[in-house]
Amino acid sequence: MTATPARITAVDTYDIRFPTSRELDGSDAMNPDPDYSAAYVVLRTDAGDGLEGHGFTFTIGRGNDVQVAAIGALRPHLLGRSVDALCADPGSLNRDLIGDSQLRWLGPEKGVMHMAIGAVVNAVWDLAAKREGQPLWRLLAHADPAWLVSQIDFRYIVDALTPEEALRMLREGRTGLAEREAALLERGYPGYTTSPGWLGYSDEKLTRLAKQAVADGFTQIKLKVGADLADDVRRMRTARAAVGSRIRIAIDANQRWNIGEAVAWTRALAEFDPYWIEEPTSPDDILGHAAVREGVTPVKVATGEHVQNRVVFKQLLQAGAIDVLQIDAARVGGVNENLAILLLAAKFGVPVCPHAGGVGLCELVQHLSMFDYLALSGTTDDRVIEYVDHLHEHFTDPVKLREGHYLAPLAPGFSATMHPGSLAAYRYPDGGFWAVDLAGREEVA
Amino acid sequence: MTATPARITAVDTYDIRFPTSRELDGSDAMNPDPDYSAAYVVLRTDAGDGLEGHGFTFTIGRGNDVQVAAIGALRPHLLGRSVDALCADPGSLNRDLIGDSQLRWLGPEKGVMHMAIGAVVNAVWDLAAKREGQPLWRLLAHADPAWLVSQIDFRYIVDALTPEEALRMLREGRTGLAEREAALLERGYPGYTTSPGWLGYSDEKLTRLAKQAVADGFTQIKLKVGADLADDVRRMRTARAAVGSRIRIAIDANQRWNIGEAVAWTRALAEFDPYWIEEPTSPDDILGHAAVREGVTPVKVATGEHVQNRVVFKQLLQAGAIDVLQIDAARVGGVNENLAILLLAAKFGVPVCPHAGGVGLCELVQHLSMFDYLALSGTTDDRVIEYVDHLHEHFTDPVKLREGHYLAPLAPGFSATMHPGSLAAYRYPDGGFWAVDLAGREEVA
Repeated sequence: MTATPARITAVDTYDIRFPTSRELDGSDAMNPDPDYSAAYVVLRTDAGDGLEGHGFTFTIGRGNDVQVAAIGALRPHLLGRSVDALCADPGSLNRDLIGDSQLRWLGPEKGVMHMAIGAVVNAVWDLAAKREGQPLWRLLAHADPAWLVSQIDFRYIVDALTPEEALRMLREGRTGLAEREAALLERGYPGYTTSPGWLGYSDEKLTRLAKQAVADGFTQIKLKVGADLADDVRRMRTARAAVGSRIRIAIDANQRWNIGEAVAWTRALAEFDPYWIEEPTSPDDILGHAAVREGVTPVKVATGEHVQNRVVFKQLLQAGAIDVLQIDAARVGGVNENLAILLLAAKFGVPVCPHAGGVGLCELVQHLSMFDYLALSGTTDDRVIEYVDHLHEHFTDPVKLREGHYLAPLAPGFSATMHPGSLAAYRYPDGGFWAVDLAGREEVA
Repeated sequence: MTATPARITAVDTYDIRFPTSRELDGSDAMNPDPDYSAAYVVLRTDAGDGLEGHGFTFTIGRGNDVQVAAIGALRPHLLGRSVDALCADPGSLNRDLIGDSQLRWLGPEKGVMHMAIGAVVNAVWDLAAKREGQPLWRLLAHADPAWLVSQIDFRYIVDALTPEEALRMLREGRTGLAEREAALLERGYPGYTTSPGWLGYSDEKLTRLAKQAVADGFTQIKLKVGADLADDVRRMRTARAAVGSRIRIAIDANQRWNIGEAVAWTRALAEFDPYWIEEPTSPDDILGHAAVREGVTPVKVATGEHVQNRVVFKQLLQAGAIDVLQIDAARVGGVNENLAILLLAAKFGVPVCPHAGGVGLCELVQHLSMFDYLALSGTTDDRVIEYVDHLHEHFTDPVKLREGHYLAPLAPGFSATMHPGSLAAYRYPDGGFWAVDLAGREEVA
């Protein structure tokens, strides 16, 4: 043993893929055959406490290797770094990575390289929360507001939100924290389920799963739409018949439409009272979303799972383009950028209903919504976290739902840790599952 | 020999890096030490004609390996494809790549994966033009307008430009083509030079290079700004004194500022009559650019080199956010997407002044501007292609400038082909230059 402070000693990456396309789980109008995957990273240290930081980018199959390579390109920024300093100020890493001028050229702040930054930044938050012995939501909710503000990169957003405003909002957000925390621990945070609504499912399966969702306590479900209007009318009628008039049904086009199509298609489904239309068009089209919103009111417009960074979210809010803001825990530059986005949403009074599902996105994003409830927005009104019942079994601290609510996770960390056995089995192409599967395909061919 | 049609047989990738950071060439307020690089791709066929398709993504160093991996991920879409079919319809590849739902998740249509698509799509255009025995500008300018329209993906832009409008514009654009082609071959296409204005240069070097630019026939130069206002005032005064009042001086902040800063800083330089302010803030901030434009009039606002795709360009035009649109040949999804962007610019009456420099960007983008002049906008008024005198010697058909004008390239193809010796020397980390250089550094260390 020496007195040397603990350092980051390894940044291990894993190309993890699950063969979900075989069941049409996750099928939608733009993504007919996803193989839910994770470009996964583990930060190891020489602290001797057995703690690791886990993080990942979610992808849907091909290209997961490129995403893994991008995470690997960040290794020199991490190796040798002081664990104490990093965990005391994850924002310092966030700034270094966003500010690496050579890597910045590959975005800036978007796509593969930005998601890689999100994966390692989230892994640092996982490690920081584990070292504090706290679930991340609780660490964030009880953090000093000035420190939280110091974690945020305000570049390009000060025209909408200044550090001073953020500090005031976070200070005010603390009022009533103890009562809300008790309520959260008692009831959990409301969720909604997308499980009934994948495009590949039969009407019988849709009906069965929609009824099950209501029986399970969900007050909102979601249907994928956008491939065929006649099908969508029939499926929407089927879903409405299954759940009755008091359950909210959101619809999700996964970017399928142009502006005019989005308005016409949504209106054609209006008789079934859709609650929101999600991703009606390109996630890059701020003005387009504003036009869709004007055209489909009173149906709400929701987007965010593919929104690349805080700058685009800022504009969606400034333009009055969305009614519902859908953060994703693993698309932007990690917890730090999502703090900025939660603050922007609160400033503009737009409810945040996170995107989740995929691999581990539910596990991650619940922490951000719970922080938002406890210490920023102070409410769960009209706020729900997406829930999809896939692949949770691969995580050591999987989400727990009760009566349609996410129960607050109590284990230290960001709930990002996968079982070592899952990493070993689903590592592509040489893990146990794939080695056997790919060998079998070669024999058949 | 068999009667089998020729196929794509190899997609060879190269991580090419030049040590430009050692001379501070290319230094600006956001990029202090770029190592100009190319993620380079060569498409080989079994046609037996010796022709290859060359393309690349320009990067500035670290991460070039990630970009190479992304190009490699596209290999399955290319191998075995009919060369005749591909060259007759490069748009078919463009659609397949943009539409690969699994790869799409990594963008969509932005960042590393989108630039990789641009590299291979451009390589196909290079091959197609070589097979036709034409420089690409000439192939495009003489192409059937209906075929050109078929090459464009109108998804997400039909609210601003329909295929019918595009066809009408391209048909009308043909009027006077022969006269303009004669003029182009005689005089070339106007350029401007950034060579005097890098941040790392002394005032003496700035003065000397600015005077040289005027002597060389340029009517516009550009200065990098944004690191220090007092320095910028001095440098701008120095440059204006060197070139006199009739030469345009553009300034370029490389995304350095927030909105308020951009307006204040640009106004502080207004006494020296800057022609445009380029990249004042985030390339993602459409509404921000509109606000800057309102604040700095009559200084023009220019952007585009980091604009990720046609959807963002569409909105910059719809929002009246820019006076000058700066396409880049290797940032978006290749020639096909740039055709859409040129048509959008023409529709909104905004002049296109391409970004170039880096590695080979001048070589590529001249073809697009020359096509625009011959068969779309029909004019070079207030249009200039950026010129930087770096690294052209590595290309088999380097750009030729005369009296501040790009001379039309006459060799078949897209001018994308690098010398085999350059590929061998600057391949990282094992090419001749780097192997010696990196070994030397190890000895010193």
